[in-house]
Amino acid sequence: MKKVTVKNPEGKLGVLIVGLGGAVSTTFIAGLHNILKGYGKPFGSLTQMATIRIGERTENNFPFIKDYVSLSKPEDIVIGGWEIRNNNCYEAAKEAKVLESIDLDSIVREMERIEPMSAVFDKYYVKRLDGDFVKRGKNKKELAEQLRDDIKKFKELNNLERVVVIWCASTEIFISENEVHKSLANFEKGMLENNEDISPSMLYAYAALSEGVPFINGAPNLSVEIPALLELAEKTSVPVAGKDFKTGQTLIKTVIAPMLKARMLGLEGWFSTNLLGNKDGVVLDEPGSFKTKEESKLSVLNTILQPELYPDLYKDFYHKVRINYYPPRGDNKEGWDNIDIFGWLGYPMQLKVNFLCKDSILAAPLVLDLILFMDLAQRAGMKGIQEWLSFYFKSPNHSPNIIPEHDLFIQQMKLKNTLRTIMNEEPITHIDTDLE
Amino acid sequence: MKKVTVKNPEGKLGVLIVGLGGAVSTTFIAGLHNILKGYGKPFGSLTQMATIRIGERTENNFPFIKDYVSLSKPEDIVIGGWEIRNNNCYEAAKEAKVLESIDLDSIVREMERIEPMSAVFDKYYVKRLDGDFVKRGKNKKELAEQLRDDIKKFKELNNLERVVVIWCASTEIFISENEVHKSLANFEKGMLENNEDISPSMLYAYAALSEGVPFINGAPNLSVEIPALLELAEKTSVPVAGKDFKTGQTLIKTVIAPMLKARMLGLEGWFSTNLLGNKDGVVLDEPGSFKTKEESKLSVLNTILQPELYPDLYKDFYHKVRINYYPPRGDNKEGWDNIDIFGWLGYPMQLKVNFLCKDSILAAPLVLDLILFMDLAQRAGMKGIQEWLSFYFKSPNHSPNIIPEHDLFIQQMKLKNTLRTIMNEEPITHIDTDLE
Amino acid sequence: MKKVTVKNPEGKLGVLIVGLGGAVSTTFIAGLHNILKGYGKPFGSLTQMATIRIGERTENNFPFIKDYVSLSKPEDIVIGGWEIRNNNCYEAAKEAKVLESIDLDSIVREMERIEPMSAVFDKYYVKRLDGDFVKRGKNKKELAEQLRDDIKKFKELNNLERVVVIWCASTEIFISENEVHKSLANFEKGMLENNEDISPSMLYAYAALSEGVPFINGAPNLSVEIPALLELAEKTSVPVAGKDFKTGQTLIKTVIAPMLKARMLGLEGWFSTNLLGNKDGVVLDEPGSFKTKEESKLSVLNTILQPELYPDLYKDFYHKVRINYYPPRGDNKEGWDNIDIFGWLGYPMQLKVNFLCKDSILAAPLVLDLILFMDLAQRAGMKGIQEWLSFYFKSPNHSPNIIPEHDLFIQQMKLKNTLRTIMNEEPITHIDTDLE
Amino acid sequence: MKKVTVKNPEGKLGVLIVGLGGAVSTTFIAGLHNILKGYGKPFGSLTQMATIRIGERTENNFPFIKDYVSLSKPEDIVIGGWEIRNNNCYEAAKEAKVLESIDLDSIVREMERIEPMSAVFDKYYVKRLDGDFVKRGKNKKELAEQLRDDIKKFKELNNLERVVVIWCASTEIFISENEVHKSLANFEKGMLENNEDISPSMLYAYAALSEGVPFINGAPNLSVEIPALLELAEKTSVPVAGKDFKTGQTLIKTVIAPMLKARMLGLEGWFSTNLLGNKDGVVLDEPGSFKTKEESKLSVLNTILQPELYPDLYKDFYHKVRINYYPPRGDNKEGWDNIDIFGWLGYPMQLKVNFLCKDSILAAPLVLDLILFMDLAQRAGMKGIQEWLSFYFKSPNHSPNIIPEHDLFIQQMKLKNTLRTIMNEEPITHIDTDLE
Repeated sequence: MKKVTVKNPEGKLGVLIVGLGGAVSTTFIAGLHNILKGYGKPFGSLTQMATIRIGERTENNFPFIKDYVSLSKPEDIVIGGWEIRNNNCYEAAKEAKVLESIDLDSIVREMERIEPMSAVFDKYYVKRLDGDFVKRGKNKKELAEQLRDDIKKFKELNNLERVVVIWCASTEIFISENEVHKSLANFEKGMLENNEDISPSMLYAYAALSEGVPFINGAPNLSVEIPALLELAEKTSVPVAGKDFKTGQTLIKTVIAPMLKARMLGLEGWFSTNLLGNKDGVVLDEPGSFKTKEESKLSVLNTILQPELYPDLYKDFYHKVRINYYPPRGDNKEGWDNIDIFGWLGYPMQLKVNFLCKDSILAAPLVLDLILFMDLAQRAGMKGIQEWLSFYFKSPNHSPNIIPEHDLFIQQMKLKNTLRTIMNEEPITHIDTDLE
Repeated sequence: MKKVTVKNPEGKLGVLIVGLGGAVSTTFIAGLHNILKGYGKPFGSLTQMATIRIGERTENNFPFIKDYVSLSKPEDIVIGGWEIRNNNCYEAAKEAKVLESIDLDSIVREMERIEPMSAVFDKYYVKRLDGDFVKRGKNKKELAEQLRDDIKKFKELNNLERVVVIWCASTEIFISENEVHKSLANFEKGMLENNEDISPSMLYAYAALSEGVPFINGAPNLSVEIPALLELAEKTSVPVAGKDFKTGQTLIKTVIAPMLKARMLGLEGWFSTNLLGNKDGVVLDEPGSFKTKEESKLSVLNTILQPELYPDLYKDFYHKVRINYYPPRGDNKEGWDNIDIFGWLGYPMQLKVNFLCKDSILAAPLVLDLILFMDLAQRAGMKGIQEWLSFYFKSPNHSPNIIPEHDLFIQQMKLKNTLRTIMNEEPITHIDTDLE
Repeated sequence: MKKVTVKNPEGKLGVLIVGLGGAVSTTFIAGLHNILKGYGKPFGSLTQMATIRIGERTENNFPFIKDYVSLSKPEDIVIGGWEIRNNNCYEAAKEAKVLESIDLDSIVREMERIEPMSAVFDKYYVKRLDGDFVKRGKNKKELAEQLRDDIKKFKELNNLERVVVIWCASTEIFISENEVHKSLANFEKGMLENNEDISPSMLYAYAALSEGVPFINGAPNLSVEIPALLELAEKTSVPVAGKDFKTGQTLIKTVIAPMLKARMLGLEGWFSTNLLGNKDGVVLDEPGSFKTKEESKLSVLNTILQPELYPDLYKDFYHKVRINYYPPRGDNKEGWDNIDIFGWLGYPMQLKVNFLCKDSILAAPLVLDLILFMDLAQRAGMKGIQEWLSFYFKSPNHSPNIIPEHDLFIQQMKLKNTLRTIMNEEPITHIDTDLE
Repeated sequence: MKKVTVKNPEGKLGVLIVGLGGAVSTTFIAGLHNILKGYGKPFGSLTQMATIRIGERTENNFPFIKDYVSLSKPEDIVIGGWEIRNNNCYEAAKEAKVLESIDLDSIVREMERIEPMSAVFDKYYVKRLDGDFVKRGKNKKELAEQLRDDIKKFKELNNLERVVVIWCASTEIFISENEVHKSLANFEKGMLENNEDISPSMLYAYAALSEGVPFINGAPNLSVEIPALLELAEKTSVPVAGKDFKTGQTLIKTVIAPMLKARMLGLEGWFSTNLLGNKDGVVLDEPGSFKTKEESKLSVLNTILQPELYPDLYKDFYHKVRINYYPPRGDNKEGWDNIDIFGWLGYPMQLKVNFLCKDSILAAPLVLDLILFMDLAQRAGMKGIQEWLSFYFKSPNHSPNIIPEHDLFIQQMKLKNTLRTIMNEEPITHIDTDLE
């Protein structure tokens, strides 16, 4: 195994959020400030709360991840971003209705101070949204250059050492990978020609990578994983990660499905209903954006269950995902899963899961973790797709010759063993000691 | 790592089941015969259906476990056992009302042929049961000797190479480990004195181990894991395993709880309701047997969640398990779990799981796997507690200086890596390839 | 109150079912034969099992409905019908997979003997179905005449006194009431011109009413309630009833919603998910048929909750109904309702109802009751829409100047008080005795 | 029908609450003040929000109940009461954690002003509670006299025309009706002798009735319905009502069970789980108080389903109620009902209801309604048990020769028809108009 060297996290870390005023973004930002002031705790965040076992179980050595690897500190984070309406973060957070007044009132000043830069936005890609705080440009290349300037100025102005860009904006329409995405040359030509298959999220990724800045995609739309942008990431030695934050129903799915497979219980059908009443619900009520999301959600089961290996168990199960805009729920997403399984001799059983969750509350700590881990990856000299961060995504980006890993527990082991390897430690195998 | 040698599984494998006429036993036996005739499939069984990955993911090498390690074949199994009522297995299966007529009618002869030997039974240990097909003896030692004779005769009569004994009988009352359990000498003295803390299940274990036969405990009562019997297992070089088959609600628990911990989501309370209408329900309606079961079910969460490492997340959660005898359910056990969790800044969420399962359908394949893996272990020269089989148990037996592993996915990795090690292969770490 | 005279139910009662081979029809027919042979009981049927209180509560006088009013007897029923495929009822029942083998094997002969007449069918009205056992005719008038002939012959052949026709076939596409439906003259002209808005169900109704035979519509499509056919019913003095059998989720809705209103609890949203895997599911997966069903299902809440009277409580609730074709469920329909309510000062609460029901099992007894009550109505000289049978329907037919009654309990009281009135008895008011 | 005359509600109406500082009481009081100030609405209250139909449906005449009958106005209510700890209502409401800060902060003064009188309390009757603000007396008669004095003083001090007393305190232990309860003479002798079977709630009732003040019992313990106190109520011409506010799970039960019966669907089992984390939960965790509550909850189904009339459907169903103290839930009571039913030919189906409710939010409007209706009853010259208020109770008090009515919808009709009768109007029968 090669020896890894990690640079120290000196100075400030800039975070630029696309969709700065959204529910996830403002919940993350408000949470960060509450945490820094000691008013709340970063539950849900591995970088802040989790431990990692080092050595044998009997050695009883469980340092916190944040003490084990050299992560940037939350207090060194400086936040900025883009949004299609010119509201400061306090106004936006109020509107998002995720956090209670008490959790916003204590940090009004910090939140008001964070104001968006105007966004690259085109209603064609997110049909249910409107915004007036939008950049103009002759072509997509010019828009990308404006984003590069934004990044540069943000860095200078705030005297930052490093920056990470993260997409927390809405789901764009479904786009299939095609010629314009195949190489950096095609892509740059496409931008000049305003090619329809180059979406705003790709322009943000292009701008970030061009500036040597890691890019994370929290939504399911096609973006940084296209060959053109991976080529750019390779060229500029930048790590990228995506896509679609794994929260709510899919999180549950990637836990229940491995259980079924672990126990060789067959699957006859899986019906997933989602109720959500926030802006996400509005956007996903539109068929184009829904298709993008649906693809992301459907892919999960097949990869985990491996019907090609287990045709008797998993070849013909019926899988249906419904996302319903249901205003009474607000940001409190609700999932109802009905799972029809079978065991010994084919006898049927049912499992029903009702998850009354809060979308942004589940996503906010992922934002924090991804920022800090991507910054770590960059300092450790890692570039391109970071598969070890699959843990955080519904549709993990992956190299073309490999199947993505969806099983939450294998993802977790991958993540932790990667951290151990970064620290030049032996990975853990959970093998029985008397056989070792 | 030391080199392991496994003897070939020549000849017939005898299986002696304590509680031969119970729902789990008859479902296992009827299933086995259906499977041998090609009328049904052994869903739920790893030994029969699961594959194991060998080498790198990219090598795409996934043999079936049964082709990879040298397991006994289902057709080489010969079944016998003990029961407190003298019914043949067909009658018993009919009464258990688990399988549909069609699945019993096709194997009437095979089932009728299997008749129990009289059992060692004492109502003191299972207050809600009655039986008249019961052995008599001056003291417990004498009863144990009668069981040894039964094993010997069964082996001779059926011309068997090897035998495994498995406890599928009802849950005995709660007994705390004490002096009589501390050493083999104390235990043997205790048998002569009819010590109250020596239960029938211990006598069966004693008889099996004395005969060099592996013993598996599928119920939660204190049994083969006492020091006295481990001493005996060491002496006779026999593997043992237990306890309490992991099915239904606890199976779900050992999957959801690791998910919470993986994601650092806090737990405020977990309320588990069980409805079951079979004989198990009758037995567990009695406080003594319930206490035994409750201990087994409650221990799970603390070990997985590690409150000592994560006091902010898991120190004070409220955990309650209710088991309700509810006749309309029959063997169709139903679990309803209400799980109160919290995330980012402490915001609360709820997860509710309703599992409409079939107890014996879930347990039957575990019986098959455990028999075959225990036989493998013995042929591989492994003895004492088989921790790598924790995967199958609610309260895995473990060595005194180690905490039991409850997380289903770590248990699964342990099991598979142990199989790899038995085959002198490298264990798998799921580490990212570009770091290797 | 006028005095009612009821003719005695002499002789045989013919029942002609449209959709003779469907799940509901065959479950009804097989059930009827099992019941006549004493193999099963008519659970779910008021005519066979319910009592009716006569006089004061203290009089303790509760005769069975069937002993109180003069109903036809089940043994006097002779069954026939139409179907688009030429299978006998035994074959059809096997295919429907509702009843277990044991419940069909005992009545094979009776079921085989019942064979369909060829149907009036047009794929335009039920896009997902195909059939080859279909009548031909120059125009719709001619097809209706063929149906009249069928009825006449069935009556003669079986020596019947009276006949009832009931639509148990699939849901037709959505049709709005328009000119052709406005008068009998328009309608008869329309049949000659093959007007597109005259559906097969209307032709069956036309044929029945022309023959003086009551017509019942068990599906939600526009049919006998159009003015043209009501004019005909008036002319021929025939009672009619419909529409859409009230089973499953809507049954629950018409019970929960009255409870909310009774207690003045507000409603913020009601989300209804349906899973069904039978032919109904296939048909309703098609937008045209779904629209018909959706209208039927959506109308319920507004009428019960009276938002015009209670704007603060019920003006703006969000109501969504989803019907999902989910093959693993088969005929076992499943409903999941999520109901968001609010109480004192507007505090929110949630009610979730999961109904694992069997569609045809719930519908079959309604078929029996409706047949017998419609026959009673005709013998009592009642004609036109029978509002007192609203109890059985999702979208009760009603006179144009009145709002339909959806509350199950008011419907029940209406039904029972109507029976009392038919028997020239005082209706019951449940008033406190000390005030009377 | 006799003509009813109702006195006008002149002047102020005093309300004395036993358990003034409890969750239900403070939620009621705080709500009342919010409503009077226009900050909130009295959702859940029939007296404030419901309409009543007068005349035929076609007349479209639906006045509000409060405009139809002469009720006291909320603004004329003056509140006082007794409590075992000397906290004012603001402190108590804060502690109860039912209402959000915003709903208490606006009425701090009004709430602080309401302070309790010391209570008659004995830990023997509610074993899990402790209090130090407790009256002393030689015997129970003397304690009752102190309560009478309290009532008199409260009336004088506040210049009240009329007073109502309502028990909103905790559930007392189970007491069987016996000799001491049989006559007023026995009861008065028993008080002097400190008879153990005379509980505090009986002393409050005795005091109220002696003062000519109506008494309402919101808890399930034996109280005002004993013959001794009914004798007193008759003597002093005072109306009484009880017992056990119908909220949560039982409310649902009295709606689902009538539906089953209306449709002649059989019942095999009904399993009810309750989670509650407030003081009620603590009290009911004690076997004595639980027994009282359980009796109240269990009685419901038999009376509605009438197994004696319908043995095939309802004779042997299994009914189990579990109440679980579960602190994470707080005042947010949760019910999970599993209902096993059967239909046509005995085929089984399941209905599961999950009610995430708020106990005090559901109870508060009942307190308001009961106070106003009892005051109305007294002004209308009604005395003794008010069966028409059964609508509000889990175990409606009833005359000994009659079965209590549990069906919510019959209860509602009873209530409304009683109001109509009080106004000398015809009751409504829901009979079909063409038969009238």
